[in-house]
Amino acid sequence: MSDTDLEAPEIHGASTADAEIAEPSHDNENRLTRDFVDTVVDHVEAGDADEARALVRPLHPADVADLFELAPADARAPLASALAELLDGDVLAEMNDWVRDEVLRALDARQVAALATELDTDDAVAIIEDMDLEDQREVLRALDPDDRAAIEEALSYPEESAGRLMQRDLIAVPEHWTVGGVLDYLRRNEDLTTDFWEIYVVDHAHHPIGTCKLSWVLRTPRDVAIADVMQREQTLIPVDMDQEEVALRFQKYALISAAVIDSAGRLVGMVTVDDIVHIIQQEAGEDILAMSGAGDGDINEPLPRTIRSRMIWLLINLATAMLAASVIGVFSGAIEKLVALSALMTIVSGMGGNAATQTMAVTVRALATNQLTSSNTWRMIGREWWIALANGVGLGALMTIGCQLYYHDIGLSMILLAAMIINSINAGLAGVLIPLGLEKLKVDPAVTSTVFVTTMTDCMGFFALLGLATLFNVQ
Amino acid sequence: MSDTDLEAPEIHGASTADAEIAEPSHDNENRLTRDFVDTVVDHVEAGDADEARALVRPLHPADVADLFELAPADARAPLASALAELLDGDVLAEMNDWVRDEVLRALDARQVAALATELDTDDAVAIIEDMDLEDQREVLRALDPDDRAAIEEALSYPEESAGRLMQRDLIAVPEHWTVGGVLDYLRRNEDLTTDFWEIYVVDHAHHPIGTCKLSWVLRTPRDVAIADVMQREQTLIPVDMDQEEVALRFQKYALISAAVIDSAGRLVGMVTVDDIVHIIQQEAGEDILAMSGAGDGDINEPLPRTIRSRMIWLLINLATAMLAASVIGVFSGAIEKLVALSALMTIVSGMGGNAATQTMAVTVRALATNQLTSSNTWRMIGREWWIALANGVGLGALMTIGCQLYYHDIGLSMILLAAMIINSINAGLAGVLIPLGLEKLKVDPAVTSTVFVTTMTDCMGFFALLGLATLFNVQ
Repeated sequence: MSDTDLEAPEIHGASTADAEIAEPSHDNENRLTRDFVDTVVDHVEAGDADEARALVRPLHPADVADLFELAPADARAPLASALAELLDGDVLAEMNDWVRDEVLRALDARQVAALATELDTDDAVAIIEDMDLEDQREVLRALDPDDRAAIEEALSYPEESAGRLMQRDLIAVPEHWTVGGVLDYLRRNEDLTTDFWEIYVVDHAHHPIGTCKLSWVLRTPRDVAIADVMQREQTLIPVDMDQEEVALRFQKYALISAAVIDSAGRLVGMVTVDDIVHIIQQEAGEDILAMSGAGDGDINEPLPRTIRSRMIWLLINLATAMLAASVIGVFSGAIEKLVALSALMTIVSGMGGNAATQTMAVTVRALATNQLTSSNTWRMIGREWWIALANGVGLGALMTIGCQLYYHDIGLSMILLAAMIINSINAGLAGVLIPLGLEKLKVDPAVTSTVFVTTMTDCMGFFALLGLATLFNVQ
Repeated sequence: MSDTDLEAPEIHGASTADAEIAEPSHDNENRLTRDFVDTVVDHVEAGDADEARALVRPLHPADVADLFELAPADARAPLASALAELLDGDVLAEMNDWVRDEVLRALDARQVAALATELDTDDAVAIIEDMDLEDQREVLRALDPDDRAAIEEALSYPEESAGRLMQRDLIAVPEHWTVGGVLDYLRRNEDLTTDFWEIYVVDHAHHPIGTCKLSWVLRTPRDVAIADVMQREQTLIPVDMDQEEVALRFQKYALISAAVIDSAGRLVGMVTVDDIVHIIQQEAGEDILAMSGAGDGDINEPLPRTIRSRMIWLLINLATAMLAASVIGVFSGAIEKLVALSALMTIVSGMGGNAATQTMAVTVRALATNQLTSSNTWRMIGREWWIALANGVGLGALMTIGCQLYYHDIGLSMILLAAMIINSINAGLAGVLIPLGLEKLKVDPAVTSTVFVTTMTDCMGFFALLGLATLFNVQ
C-alpha cells in the first residue's frame, strides 16, 4: 500500500479526497455540486450513458439519491433509464418519496421487484407502501413467496407503526445457550442477516427476555451462558406503536436497536436506530412546517398539490382575518374621529401576534418532546403569565412614551398602554393554553394552534385599543 | 423462572409491566405521572428519604433525570441530597442543562468529580463544560490525572464540535491482525471499553483505513484477516467539525459510529449515534424556536433570562411594526376619506404574512437539511413564484367578490384585488429570497428571516392598498 493511499483513505465528501478528482463531486458541506449534477444530466441527454455511469458509480447510495433529487424533474426519467444498473434498493430507500415515484415509473414491475428483494423488509415496505394499489399488486406478484409474505404482513400493520418500520431478519437465541454456542451458530449459518447490533435472547415461547450487545458477546469467554451476559431490562416495542412514540423511546433510552413484539408478547422483528434517525429528524422538523401551514413542506411535491394545501391554510386564515377586520369595522367611528388609531392598532395586534408565537413555539416543542406533562403544566402557565406581564408592561411603557412624544395626547397614550398590557397577557395565555387544550382534545397542536392564536391576538389587539378609545371617547 | 416472569419482562414504561405496581410510575405515553412525581417529592419533604429512594431506584436513568425536571424548582436541591446515591453520571448526562446546574450546586466538587470519572469522556465534558470556570477547575483537580487530561483536551476543542462529542475509548486494531486475533485481544484485555459497535482498523501511523461492524467479526471464521472483512469506504469526522454537520453525516450515511481524526488524519476518538440522536432532535426543533424568536425555548431556563431574550426579539419587531405603522401614517388621508381601508389593509398584510411564513418555513427546513443547494435554488424560487401567483389571484378574486358584495364599490374592490396579488407575490419572493440571502451571508436564516419577511409583508400590504387608493383617489 503506497503512502498516498495511507494518507487519503476514502472519505465521504471530504474535500481532501475529492481534490484528486478532476470534477469535485461534493462542496465543502458535503452536498453534490451543481456542476457535477449538470455534467451527469448533460451526459445522459447527449446519450452518453457510459460516461454518466462512470461519474455516478463511485458515489455513496445516499449521494445517488441526492443526484436524482437535485436533477430537474424532466431529467429524472431519462436519468433512471441510463443509471438503471446503479439504482439499487439502498439508493431508492434514501430517495424522497415524490422523486422515487418518478423514478419507479421509469422502471417496470419486474425491475422494482428485483430491487425490493435485495432490501430489508422495512426498506422494501417503505418503497412499496407509496405505490398505487395496482402497481403494488404487480410488484408483489413478481416477488418470491417468502419476501411477498413478509412484505404483505408488514403492509397489514397501520401506516407509521413499528410493524412497518421493523425488519424481520434478526438474531434470536435461546437463553440456555453459551456465548460459544452463539458464536458457532453465527459462523455456521450462512443465511443469517449480517447487519445487526444486538442479539435477542428468547424463551421457549419466543418471548424476548433479554438483549445482548455484540460487544459484550465479544468480550466474554466462550463457556459463559448468554443469559448471564444479557441485559434483562429492555425496551420492547409493541408492533402497533406509532413511529413517533418509537422515536421518543429510542431517544430517551439511547437505543441502538429494540425488539418488536406482537400482542402475545412474541418477538416478531427489530427496529434499528438508522431507521429512527430519519423519523426523529422528520418529526422534529414537521412542527415548524405544520405551525406555518406549509403542509409537508416537501420541496419535491408536485406544484398543484402544494398550491392546494397552502391555499386551504391561507383561506382559513383569511376567514379569521375577516373576523379581526370586522372588529375594526365595528369601531370605524373611533377611527373616523382619530385616524392615528388605525396605525396604532396594527402595532398592538402585531406585538401580540409575535409574543403569542414565541409562547406557542415553546409549548408545541415541549409537548412534542414529552417535556410538558401534567406535573409541570401549571408551572408552565405561570411562567408564561409572568413573561407576558413583563413584556406587556415593559414594551407598553416604551410605546406609551413614544406615543406621547409623537401625538401629545395623554388619553391616547394611556389607552395604548392599557391595550398593550391586555393584549400581551392575552397573547401569552393563548399561546400556552390553546396548544395545551388542543393536545387534550387529541388534535395536533402544531397544525391547529396558529389559526386560533393569531385570531385571538388580532381580534383582542384591535378590540382593546379601539374599544377603549370608544369607551373613553378619545378624539 | 415462573410463568409470570416470562410474560412480563421488564419493559420501560409499558403499561402491562406497570399495572402490577401499586403506584404506576408512567402514563401511557411513557412519561412519569404527576402522582408519582408528587409522591416522591412529598416523601423527601417529609424527611422520608428511604421511601423516596425505594420508589426511584427501579427507574431508568433517563426517568430519574425526568423526575428532577418535572419536580418544582425549589424541590430539586432537597431531592438531589436525598437521592444522591442514585445520581450517577448517566442520570446527569440525560438531564436538562439548567436543571443539572441546580442539582450540581447541591453536590460538592468531590461528588461531581466522582460522577465524572465513571462517564465516557463526551458525557463528562457535557456536564463540566456548562459549569462556571471556577467550579470546572475544582472538579478537574479532583479527577484522576488520566481523566483530567482527557477532559481538558476535549474542552480545548471548540464548543459544539466533534472533539467535544467524541469518546476516546474505542477499539482500534492493526490491519494485519486476523479475526481470531481481534477476538483474543478483546477477551484478554479487561480494561478495554465494553460499549462499541464497530472496530476501527488503523495503519502504523494510526490513520483509520477501514471500519468493521461487530456483526461481521462475529460471522467470520477466526483465520480471516480483519483487513478482508472491514469496509474501506468510511465516513471520517474531522475533530473540529461542527456537531450539526456531524449529525447530517450520520443521517445521510445511516451511521452507527464514526471515527474522529485530527488534522494529521490520526484516529483520536469516535462518535456514536446515541449522542447524535439528541443533536438531530435538537437542531431540527431549534428552527421553529428560532423563527418564533423564542431563544432556546428551554422551559427550564430561569425566568429573567427567558424574559430578557424574548423581550429583545419583541423590541426588534416593535421597531419594524412602527415602520409599517408609519406607512399607514403617510396615507392617513386615504383612511380619513374611506375608513373601510383601515379594515381591509389588515387583511392584505395578514394574508401576506401568512403566505410568507409558509414559504419561509419550507426554505429554512430545506436549507437546514441540505436539500436546497445551488443545483435547485432557481427551481425553488420558480416554484414559490407560481404558488404566490396562484394564491394571490385565487384568494384575491375571492376577497374582491366579498368586498364588492359588502361595500358595492367597484373601485375599492379592484384596488383590493391588485393589492392582494402584489402582496402575495411580495410575500412568496421575500419568504424564499430572504432566507437564501441570509444563508449566503452566513447568517442563520432561522433566527433572522422572520423580522425581515414580516416587515416586508406588513409594509407592502399597507403600502399597496393605501397607495393605490390614494393614486386612484378612491373615496
